Amino acid sequence: MLLITILKIYISKISKFKCNQNLQQKFFSLYKKKMVWNLKRNPLKRLVPVPSDIEIAHEHKCKPISQLCSEIGLEPDEYELYGHYKAKIDHRIPMEMDKLKQGKYVVIAGITPTPLGEGKSTTTIGLAQSLAAHLNRNTIACIRQPSQGPTFGIKGGAAGGGYSQVIPMDEFNLHLTGDIHAIAAANNLIAAAIDARYFHESTQNDAQLFNRLVPKHPGKPRKFTLIQLRRLKKLGIPIDLDPEKFTTEQKAEFARLDIDLDTITWNRVVDCNDRFLRKITIGQSSTEKGLERKTQFDIAVASELMAILALANNLEDVKDRVGKIVVAFSKHDPPRPITCDDLGVTGAITVLLKDTIKPTLVQTLEGTPILVHCGPFANIAHGNSSIIADKMALDIVGPEGFVLTESGFGADVGLEKFINIKSRDSGLVPDCVVLVCTVRALKSHGGGPAVTPGAILAKEYKEENIELLQNGLINLRRHIENITRHFGLPVVVAINKFATDTEAELKMIQEDAINNGAFDACIAQHWQLGGEGAIDLAKSVIECCEKASNNFKFLYDLEDSLETKIEKIAKKIYRASEVEFSEKAKQRLELYEKLGLGSLKICIAKTPLSISHDPNLKGAPEGFRFPIKDIRASVGAGFLYPLAGEITTMPGLPTRPAFYDIDIDCESKIIEGLF
Amino acid sequence: MLLITILKIYISKISKFKCNQNLQQKFFSLYKKKMVWNLKRNPLKRLVPVPSDIEIAHEHKCKPISQLCSEIGLEPDEYELYGHYKAKIDHRIPMEMDKLKQGKYVVIAGITPTPLGEGKSTTTIGLAQSLAAHLNRNTIACIRQPSQGPTFGIKGGAAGGGYSQVIPMDEFNLHLTGDIHAIAAANNLIAAAIDARYFHESTQNDAQLFNRLVPKHPGKPRKFTLIQLRRLKKLGIPIDLDPEKFTTEQKAEFARLDIDLDTITWNRVVDCNDRFLRKITIGQSSTEKGLERKTQFDIAVASELMAILALANNLEDVKDRVGKIVVAFSKHDPPRPITCDDLGVTGAITVLLKDTIKPTLVQTLEGTPILVHCGPFANIAHGNSSIIADKMALDIVGPEGFVLTESGFGADVGLEKFINIKSRDSGLVPDCVVLVCTVRALKSHGGGPAVTPGAILAKEYKEENIELLQNGLINLRRHIENITRHFGLPVVVAINKFATDTEAELKMIQEDAINNGAFDACIAQHWQLGGEGAIDLAKSVIECCEKASNNFKFLYDLEDSLETKIEKIAKKIYRASEVEFSEKAKQRLELYEKLGLGSLKICIAKTPLSISHDPNLKGAPEGFRFPIKDIRASVGAGFLYPLAGEITTMPGLPTRPAFYDIDIDCESKIIEGLF
Repeated sequence: MLLITILKIYISKISKFKCNQNLQQKFFSLYKKKMVWNLKRNPLKRLVPVPSDIEIAHEHKCKPISQLCSEIGLEPDEYELYGHYKAKIDHRIPMEMDKLKQGKYVVIAGITPTPLGEGKSTTTIGLAQSLAAHLNRNTIACIRQPSQGPTFGIKGGAAGGGYSQVIPMDEFNLHLTGDIHAIAAANNLIAAAIDARYFHESTQNDAQLFNRLVPKHPGKPRKFTLIQLRRLKKLGIPIDLDPEKFTTEQKAEFARLDIDLDTITWNRVVDCNDRFLRKITIGQSSTEKGLERKTQFDIAVASELMAILALANNLEDVKDRVGKIVVAFSKHDPPRPITCDDLGVTGAITVLLKDTIKPTLVQTLEGTPILVHCGPFANIAHGNSSIIADKMALDIVGPEGFVLTESGFGADVGLEKFINIKSRDSGLVPDCVVLVCTVRALKSHGGGPAVTPGAILAKEYKEENIELLQNGLINLRRHIENITRHFGLPVVVAINKFATDTEAELKMIQEDAINNGAFDACIAQHWQLGGEGAIDLAKSVIECCEKASNNFKFLYDLEDSLETKIEKIAKKIYRASEVEFSEKAKQRLELYEKLGLGSLKICIAKTPLSISHDPNLKGAPEGFRFPIKDIRASVGAGFLYPLAGEITTMPGLPTRPAFYDIDIDCESKIIEGLF
Repeated sequence: MLLITILKIYISKISKFKCNQNLQQKFFSLYKKKMVWNLKRNPLKRLVPVPSDIEIAHEHKCKPISQLCSEIGLEPDEYELYGHYKAKIDHRIPMEMDKLKQGKYVVIAGITPTPLGEGKSTTTIGLAQSLAAHLNRNTIACIRQPSQGPTFGIKGGAAGGGYSQVIPMDEFNLHLTGDIHAIAAANNLIAAAIDARYFHESTQNDAQLFNRLVPKHPGKPRKFTLIQLRRLKKLGIPIDLDPEKFTTEQKAEFARLDIDLDTITWNRVVDCNDRFLRKITIGQSSTEKGLERKTQFDIAVASELMAILALANNLEDVKDRVGKIVVAFSKHDPPRPITCDDLGVTGAITVLLKDTIKPTLVQTLEGTPILVHCGPFANIAHGNSSIIADKMALDIVGPEGFVLTESGFGADVGLEKFINIKSRDSGLVPDCVVLVCTVRALKSHGGGPAVTPGAILAKEYKEENIELLQNGLINLRRHIENITRHFGLPVVVAINKFATDTEAELKMIQEDAINNGAFDACIAQHWQLGGEGAIDLAKSVIECCEKASNNFKFLYDLEDSLETKIEKIAKKIYRASEVEFSEKAKQRLELYEKLGLGSLKICIAKTPLSISHDPNLKGAPEGFRFPIKDIRASVGAGFLYPLAGEITTMPGLPTRPAFYDIDIDCESKIIEGLF
């Protein structure tokens, strides 16, 4: 920092001689990019045995986030504080890819998990601590914001665990900087607009509708709003046509959307596990004149707006995508898609979302930077943290730095979507895939007893069992093969070590992984030791980024037919022998191709618990028939999502929800029971 | 500020001689309290004619909010920045009333308004600008946070208007610092908990329920959580009784709430005008096994949690009140109230609300401080800004300072509730009431044509019309009489001047008000001129606070029967001849008295458009029968709310909602059309 100050003074001196301002800035920003951060490591207060997550979180103090901002080279106008320990980052991302992508870009994926999860987030955080706090590499981990639903529903947070956690943990798991709330508000405004529009169209004739939508104001020329011009363009009506000169047909064309109630796919959302909202009837007040219909609420993070935000490159991109969202179809033959532009709500939604495009900076226990941004579902959406956060992070860490980003579910789902959806939209190619596995999950793939949340873990998972492990390694091998063969990327396997794992077991995984195509396989003890426990892994990741060959490729072309794209994923990644499209799914495919949506990406909604569609098929299943029941469209997000099974978009509360343990001391403000 | 610095250095010097730390602090805080702020006035860029609100807002730059915090004497640990122009204030409020209430406390009320509103908020902001920026009195105005519903629904913001506005206007009208979102999240968690509990009780026997609610963990003694102890206490079961030793009856007693579905009064909320949620059926998914029921969504600000937050004195108070909220009654005979404590959700709700108790500091166009906090409905709730904000403001302005606070609706509703509900809970007595009126509203009370939003205003309101005005003055007189006679408070009338008002009209109001008991009556031109336009009014308010006699009194005693309390309000304030209780209302009164809720306050839900229950009765009606259809309970907020007519708790979107005009330039981030 002293050096920079001297440099700044020097520059300010020479600037008196009116030297080229641009040159100065270039020189300075080049210097900054080369800089290794002067990051202050927060020492861990490690105990044995490892205490509970919340006890550890309480024991470790955050640095003021403004200090962290300054340590990683952010200028005061590049961040906005939200309290003392959170900041929204407003760092300008370079448009040119070669300027942006100079550091290393590492994606953390996992093998097929048990329902308990295998520690992808914890590994991401632990690895970030190793790289930034122990190996002095500029490193930012980009992670997803958790939904509040699970926080109060079923025990288990998303802030990592043990000595690899994000703090402040309570802020992280509650409102953070309000992005999910803003998304819910925006989502529900669209929903209200749909039903209100339907209502008003049903009670007014075309002329009345037109006159209300384009009102006369005394003394002023009648005119369309900017949002309305978008609809005119779409309809092919000249945007400079005087509203007074519209023909009766043009008025009807403009004013009447003719929503077909049965085709509305836009649901309301709430950030809460509210099972009674899974299917509801709305519009039953007499004021709605009998126009009731069936619909549902989803949990907020299932909103298409969340997927849009996670895939957008900037606010302009958000707005364009919002405008394109298809919320329903019209009663016309053939049906016409009805979009947010048609509803006139695009501008308002973008306004509601304007601050959500700024990722939130928090820190790890060891004081290294974390960018939290977005949290799209990993089934009906693509389940990856945001493009904006990844890009900002790449620019902030500079050419010698590392950005870690996490993909949801197992690599068959999360990483496939990372490559074929997110990378396509971002233009960013990862340098290395970290594939997280556990002895527990591998044993479950080898035929171990069921692993159920809340139930006591079977002894097979707590004692050495080479046979189960040996049988289960097939799952790990399959993922390594998929990543290297189909995505052309090098893999470092991270074995997330549990206290009960034996040396023989760990060694067996290492050897098997390396023999089957992994660049390396490392035992990672970050849960127990913090960053220090993942140093081997970190060194391997560095080496992999620098040395391994990278033949990055997409699995399918956008020009492939929708059917082909789906089949490529199902057959090459999942190893299905065949894809079975239901009648409904076939009709959808036909409709989407007809509507010009054939070039959208594919985001398959399936279980994370098997590489197939069937959670009972453990290991590395092959030759099964992969069923597609329905195919829905997230046009704003840019993908279609075929449903391979029942996907719940609204969790429920158990008999004794996690909220029973949650309390706050009103004097000290200390929160209990969040984990 | 220089003086303080010197003082600080001096104190730090003498502290080396180990002088009494306490004494130092007292000396210093006394000094600070006497201090006149060194407030930097932002000069207005006034134009004639006055441009639109949003144009004015764009033309005036905010000071950094950290600068304003420092100008008003807040230490860095007393505020948390939320971006550059908003801060949450965490200033400790003195417990002792004599230390707290030394400055002047002014409540802004209004005559019976037209549906267009008569400018109470604008007057509050303009008066604050006058006092703070022109007369150099330490002054904070405390105002309510607006709901997002109207922002996107029907045109019209809540940030004042003309040259008396709150900025940044977009932040103020959108998410601000997230309080309404947090309230909605908390409200909906309670709702989800009710239905989930009902569901689980309907599918499990007592023993199963008990075992799930108080689970066994291997190797640990079985125990109740803190929240569960609250329920045990309520049931009279010893809190130290070992769960293993519970009798079958005690298990059933503890575990089974036996919610009577028909009595659930807790609704879900959304901060959006969504008319189709006014009446809905939930629980229609097969996973809910046919347990469907009818319910409704309200707009978020109608949540009882909002009323609680506005009436609480601190977080402990919030938690106590949340615990007491009655969400339904049981099927027992007699029915038992079911509370948040019974649901086990009190701690989690308090955690969700922990940051909402901190008011948000923003500024006026002239750079004077505004505390924004809470926004309870003015009908089903008490419609006043928060006690916490008022108290913080009183302590911050110090003994020579002024705090302005606004009550909703006309003085018959908002001020009556301010006195009898809010003042009772805060212990704060106002020094002066500012009663806002307009020529327009008075003419409407004198028999002028209907005033309808969106329609063109009749000519009577734009030309001199002494007769209508003369007839309408009766409404102003009635409010002055109510305030002076029943509340014992002095009144300064503020005539909010419109461009079309004539001198004769304005003079007539002034004379009539003074002749009928007002301490003074001033013409206020703050809309057109900013703070400078309300200097007369400000001087009058100062004089009134210093000189007028104050015989503050409550209208009813808490020990009065519920019926008596309701009758005192209806007969003395509204001047009804009689109160008509429906059968249902009578049953409710009986039930509430039986349940020990007889000492609650009364919060009458009625129209703001007449002093009576009937919006068509303009002027100062008398001798009417006042109908009470139903009486509901907000036990956490501490009041019952009798319904005198249909009260909508969910507005709807019109054919052309305000969102049609709203847009954002994605490059400059400038928002269009918010007003």
